[in-house]
Amino acid sequence: AQLALERDYESQREMDTRYRVLMEISRDPVVMVSMSTGRMTDLNPAAAQILGGSRSELLGAPIAQEFEGRRRGELLEALSTLAVSERAAPIELIVRRSQRRVVLTPTVFRAAGERIVLCQLDASDAVPVTDDLG
Amino acid sequence: AQLALERDYESQREMDTRYRVLMEISRDPVVMVSMSTGRMTDLNPAAAQILGGSRSELLGAPIAQEFEGRRRGELLEALSTLAVSERAAPIELIVRRSQRRVVLTPTVFRAAGERIVLCQLDASDAVPVTDDLG
Repeated sequence: AQLALERDYESQREMDTRYRVLMEISRDPVVMVSMSTGRMTDLNPAAAQILGGSRSELLGAPIAQEFEGRRRGELLEALSTLAVSERAAPIELIVRRSQRRVVLTPTVFRAAGERIVLCQLDASDAVPVTDDLG
Repeated sequence: AQLALERDYESQREMDTRYRVLMEISRDPVVMVSMSTGRMTDLNPAAAQILGGSRSELLGAPIAQEFEGRRRGELLEALSTLAVSERAAPIELIVRRSQRRVVLTPTVFRAAGERIVLCQLDASDAVPVTDDLG
């Protein structure tokens, strides 16, 4: 039994390591959001760059406050309806800190009894959005 | 103690789920290779598409045989030297099945006592390489 426990522990550590390395190196900007709190429970460097903040300051913050004109409940509700739809439709948003246009593609899954939204971000602009009319 | 074990189990399941969802949705083509066997222990749909096979037929196969002119030992040796280098340099290769040029960027890490190479693939061609000279 002791050996089995050690194997479980090793196996858990291994998945943990695989997950962390994969998040870290992926050039695909990804944010994990808890559906119950609306807070970002994990994000990778690529996502932090698009959101215009450091990973440490974004971690634990409500995702809705990172976008313009989206109240917390409103964005979560939009993400929540995707949980019951067959295919998730992308949502277009403007990032508050950088004023960049992004397309958010959500994937809802369940882990350890909690609903999590994995959000993929695509910068849909080449340059930041400005109010400049010239 | 029973509760603690159940928590460990849930936690393990959660990391497992997060890892699998992340691999599945990532548009960044990624292959995990065991350094001891040279075989692909995991790959995502984006990587399978670049390698020109299905995930199930590629899983467990030696990664070296998927590229032109690379003997198994030779590629593993190249990847192995990266384990001791500060920053991994990308390797240019030609995919055997599709004849596409790719750049392989390796990241070596250790999980559960085993060395694993995470290989990111970039198709560096717009169209397949052909022998056509016209």
